[in-house]
Parts: sequence; C-alpha cells; structure tokens
Amino acid sequence: MTTELDVGLPSIRQIQSLIKDGTEVELKLSTGDLLAGRVRWQDPICLCIVDQYDQDTIVWRQAIVYLKPRL
Amino acid sequence: MTTELDVGLPSIRQIQSLIKDGTEVELKLSTGDLLAGRVRWQDPICLCIVDQYDQDTIVWRQAIVYLKPRL
Amino acid sequence: MTTELDVGLPSIRQIQSLIKDGTEVELKLSTGDLLAGRVRWQDPICLCIVDQYDQDTIVWRQAIVYLKPRL
Amino acid sequence: MTTELDVGLPSIRQIQSLIKDGTEVELKLSTGDLLAGRVRWQDPICLCIVDQYDQDTIVWRQAIVYLKPRL
Amino acid sequence: MTTELDVGLPSIRQIQSLIKDGTEVELKLSTGDLLAGRVRWQDPICLCIVDQYDQDTIVWRQAIVYLKPRL
Amino acid sequence: MTTELDVGLPSIRQIQSLIKDGTEVELKLSTGDLLAGRVRWQDPICLCIVDQYDQDTIVWRQAIVYLKPRL
Repeated sequence: MTTELDVGLPSIRQIQSLIKDGTEVELKLSTGDLLAGRVRWQDPICLCIVDQYDQDTIVWRQAIVYLKPRL
Repeated sequence: MTTELDVGLPSIRQIQSLIKDGTEVELKLSTGDLLAGRVRWQDPICLCIVDQYDQDTIVWRQAIVYLKPRL
Repeated sequence: MTTELDVGLPSIRQIQSLIKDGTEVELKLSTGDLLAGRVRWQDPICLCIVDQYDQDTIVWRQAIVYLKPRL
Repeated sequence: MTTELDVGLPSIRQIQSLIKDGTEVELKLSTGDLLAGRVRWQDPICLCIVDQYDQDTIVWRQAIVYLKPRL
Repeated sequence: MTTELDVGLPSIRQIQSLIKDGTEVELKLSTGDLLAGRVRWQDPICLCIVDQYDQDTIVWRQAIVYLKPRL
Repeated sequence: MTTELDVGLPSIRQIQSLIKDGTEVELKLSTGDLLAGRVRWQDPICLCIVDQYDQDTIVWRQAIVYLKPRL
C-alpha cells in the first residue's frame, strides 16, 4: 500500500495549503455527490473533510473527480 | 497482490479505531449504495461491514467513495 | 500481471471458506448488477460464480463492489 | 505497461480455452453494454471479440465486468 | 508514470496499424460517449483521435471501453 | 505515489504546450461533467483548470475521459 505523499507535487502542496488556511472547498465525487467543507488531513489513500457541523467524512482519493476552493 | 496495511496512515488508523470502538458508520459506494453498520475488519483489499442483523458484507476498497462515522 | 493471492488476508481466506463450504453469495457489481450463486474459484484477477443452472460467470475483481454470504 | 499474461491463472487459462474452442461468450462492460461473440485473442490490456459479421471489437480489460460462456 | 508501450502486444500493434492505415474507428468511453475518427497517435496514457473537422481529442486510456474499426 | 511526469510522452508534452499557449480546453470527466478553461499546471496526479472567473479547479487525472483544445 502506497505510504508516502510526495510533498513536492503541486496538487499535494495545494491541499496542504488548504488544510493550513482552513479554506472551504467543494469536492466532486465519482458518484456525482458534491461535498462541502474544510480539508482536515490528507494521506496517500484518503482526504478527510469536516463539514459545518464538525462531522468528519473520510473520502477515498480514488473517488475524487475535482476539488474547488471556495474563494 | 498488496499485502500490508500501513498502520502509520491516518485513514488506516482511523478505521482501526472505528473497529475497536464499534462505531456505527455509513459507507457510500461507487454504485451509489449506502451501507450502514460497524466495521468488523479491514485488510488491503476489503472492509467487512456487519449490519444490525449481524450479517457480514465484504466491501471492496476499490468501490468505496466515503466513510462517515455516525456520531 | 499480479500472480499470487495472499492467502494470509482475511478477504482471501473468507472467499476460500465460501468456496469450500459451497455457501450461496450475492455479488454486487459496479454496473449495479446483482449476481447470486456459489463461488467456484478465485484468482488474482477474477472470481468464478456458478448459478443454480450450473452456468459459470467469470467476474472481474475490478468490478466487484461487495459480496454478501447468504445465511 | 504490463507485458505478460500469467497462463497459470484459471481466468487466463479459461479464456485461452474459449479462444481455442471458439465458444460464444457474453461480455458485460462497465457502461452496461453487453457484447456477444467469440474471443479472438487476449493480451494483458485487451480482449478481442469477433461478432457474427466477423467484425472485431477490441475491449479494454479495465472495462470488463463479467464474461459468461454461452452453453 | 508508465513510460513505454510494449509494441509486442496485439492490442498495441493493432492500434499502430490503425494509425498507419488511417482507419476510421469508433471509441466507446466510460461515460457512454461514442467518439468517431482516426487515431493520430498513442502513448501509454492516451490516444489521440482526430475527427472529420481535423479537431484533436486526447482520450485517456483509463476511460476506454472498446475500440471498433469501421470496415 | 508516482512522482515524475514523463515529458517525453506526447500526451504530457501536448498538455505542456496547452499550458504555455494558454489554449482554451474542454475536459470531459467520468461523471459526465464538462469543464472549460485553460490548463494552469499538471502533475502526475492532477491537472489544474482555471475558468473565466480566474477560479481554480483541481481535477484528478483518474477522472479525466478526454481533453479537447478549443480551436
């Protein structure tokens, strides 16, 4: 199982910034679902999204279509 | 075939906690199905979910979109 | 092409038990199809399901969403 | 890119038999499409299906859900 | 990232022939879309299809379900 | 996690050209969504698309079906 995030990659670094800044994001998933919230952490398999009720959702990377920061 | 879970990863560790604590979870799958139950075990290929009737469902990781602990 | 099943994994072992015991299973596939039957064999790429008319269906693992033993 | 088929695997061997015997098969694909015909060849990436009009269709393995020999 | 096409494989060779001969093809994609045109080039990640208006479409291999030469 | 783009591949090189030239593109995604904009950067995991309002969308490669330059 893949073990390390390559923090030199733009995509990984941008998600790190979104985590640090607590930026609201929209995540589109392969099922068509759209999740909104802040990114709490990322690892090589998943991203954790926390919504406005402080509820965690562990999203599998394999199911992510796009991520859009809410500006 | 991948053989080891990296227990250092947040996603793997959180699932281990859910197993130990017997927390109810919701699993969204690539077909749009939503399973509810407790996680019985995880391995690098699958997660086993047990429902309220003590029925096992072996879910392939490749089909998982997100997992949400029920608080 | 992956060549060996890791028989130490719970998911592989449980499927081996289902084969040995001739347990009826339900397989949910990525297309939403639901197959019912017994598992005849597994390899790293496929599972073979045999239905009540003794007809084989070779199912690709990549398309499996979940497997549920019928108790 | 994966280069060799492991002819020791049941799934690969069974497809080899279907090719040799010219057995009619049904292929279910990830889009829900159902192709019917005989398997002309397989390689690690694709299967080639030839229909009743002798027209070839090169099917990517990644899109195969199941294969059913027509008995 | 995978870097080489294995030109010994039937599927890769057949696509090379389609490119050389400028054969019209139909490509079925995972979304259900059907593209028609000629194959301009292939690499390990993509195929380039050029339509009747000489417009290029870069198709990801991961999204290809089948390819059918138009005879 | 894959770390390097193979800039010798036609698909990677063409995307580099689209970035340099600021060409408008259309991206079809696995959900059926169609994104329009310019490509800002690519890495082995994602492409970043910027729309007419200068809003970034980080698109996972795994979800890309095709990319079409708008001529």
